[in-house]
Amino acid sequence: MPTRKSGGPRGGTLIIIGGHEDKEGEKVILQEVAQRVGQGALVVATVASHEPEGYFEAYQKAFADLGVTRTSELYVNDRAETLDEQKLQQLADASGVFFSGGDQLRITSQIGDTPMERRIREIYAAGGVVCGTSAGASVMCETMLVQGRGGESHRVGGLRMAPGLGLIRNVIIDQHFAERGRMGRLLGAVAQNPRVLGIGIDEDTAIVVEGEQFKVVGSGAVYVVDGAGVTRSNVAEASQDDVLSIFDARLHVLNSGERFDLTERRPLAAAAIEESVALSEQASEAR
Amino acid sequence: MPTRKSGGPRGGTLIIIGGHEDKEGEKVILQEVAQRVGQGALVVATVASHEPEGYFEAYQKAFADLGVTRTSELYVNDRAETLDEQKLQQLADASGVFFSGGDQLRITSQIGDTPMERRIREIYAAGGVVCGTSAGASVMCETMLVQGRGGESHRVGGLRMAPGLGLIRNVIIDQHFAERGRMGRLLGAVAQNPRVLGIGIDEDTAIVVEGEQFKVVGSGAVYVVDGAGVTRSNVAEASQDDVLSIFDARLHVLNSGERFDLTERRPLAAAAIEESVALSEQASEAR
Repeated sequence: MPTRKSGGPRGGTLIIIGGHEDKEGEKVILQEVAQRVGQGALVVATVASHEPEGYFEAYQKAFADLGVTRTSELYVNDRAETLDEQKLQQLADASGVFFSGGDQLRITSQIGDTPMERRIREIYAAGGVVCGTSAGASVMCETMLVQGRGGESHRVGGLRMAPGLGLIRNVIIDQHFAERGRMGRLLGAVAQNPRVLGIGIDEDTAIVVEGEQFKVVGSGAVYVVDGAGVTRSNVAEASQDDVLSIFDARLHVLNSGERFDLTERRPLAAAAIEESVALSEQASEAR
Repeated sequence: MPTRKSGGPRGGTLIIIGGHEDKEGEKVILQEVAQRVGQGALVVATVASHEPEGYFEAYQKAFADLGVTRTSELYVNDRAETLDEQKLQQLADASGVFFSGGDQLRITSQIGDTPMERRIREIYAAGGVVCGTSAGASVMCETMLVQGRGGESHRVGGLRMAPGLGLIRNVIIDQHFAERGRMGRLLGAVAQNPRVLGIGIDEDTAIVVEGEQFKVVGSGAVYVVDGAGVTRSNVAEASQDDVLSIFDARLHVLNSGERFDLTERRPLAAAAIEESVALSEQASEAR
């Protein structure tokens, strides 16, 4: 089990999912959520959706199968409802929040800078788990991807970004990654400022972020684009319709069980992880 | 104009196209072909197709618009026809060959190791131009990509390769690249042996290979995956259904006008190219 930094500066756990996570089979991703929520209360925030009906029921059933019975739905029709005492009460004793998919701008425009958002930050800071899938994944970043075409190479002007919830810093997250051919737009985002690490998450795949590391779970892959070594790109000089050009990006592809250190910007293979666990076990046995 | 290495060890020009090149508008890619063929004869080899009808006519018209009037279609129903004197005669005085799309295995299984293939090599070695689009692009490599799903992350066992025509060495080419989400399968191919440089070419985009360099033309991008610095991948140890994992691949994205040096494995920005041309012009003026 990774260390839980309860109350630490980096808070609890973020589970960031590329969309279409399995809700009926082995549910390996939702299991990561359930493990951390346990007997606590989990609030499913369907705020990203323009029509939330139906989303909650599927999660309620899936989580009940995994032993999480205290689930409730949080939805706001408009921003004024974020002040609603009853809705805030729902979050009062929650140990987890799960953002479902839809439109990331609906999440930020409705709950950004409200008591509701502050309460969600408190849950995270107190060691709770905050999860998001699809739009709910993008919204975790400080600057989030909002729009940009997939299935084609990226045009310099073809990207829309906006301020996100900022629960994770210095990264930009994209979802439905291989499925929607989004390498181009992620490269485009990283080229704009290589300070941010690009993280592309496939469907039914997630990163579980705890402390300075994340691990990968699920059936697909996670792509990390590191622009630190980029020697040239045309984002500043090209016209809006020009195709992105970028030299010397570094690319890692991680599968289930592999980890990535966000501070060192380095991937850790499963084998290396096992080795370090074995070594630390030997060390504690020797004591 | 780049130097034509007529008769040199690397032959003439290869024009390798990612499919769906413009045949009705500005035809920037076909123009590169026409420039080099000029008043010579161009043979359009529709061998890759199981039903060639219609392919040739579109090329004939497009090339006629560009001043190339001596075009003819080369098709073989089966391998025995590659010995046909009349068909070989067609290639006798050709200065260019253009492979249209279809199935790359049909090209190699029908004409591989035949007098027809030898004649095409001779045309290239004598400074002629050999072009291929889609399947005709893949077939240029020594080891060619035949099959592998796009639009999802690559599974270790999900790749089929076969011996190609081998007109270009140490690279593996993929086409319809961004459009069909093929980054995963190209990474999978490079992971198998980082000696080969992975080159992914978008639709309506081409690389023009002369000497040790290629330049990019067309409306999309060209992706170069360099595996030389890869620190880990799971292709050898994983089971067939496992998702590919690969650390520290280097990725370049080039757009129209940019060049790449295949020996140095380095991209050259358009600006750098202009600069070096300007410098050499200054130098020759000074003389």
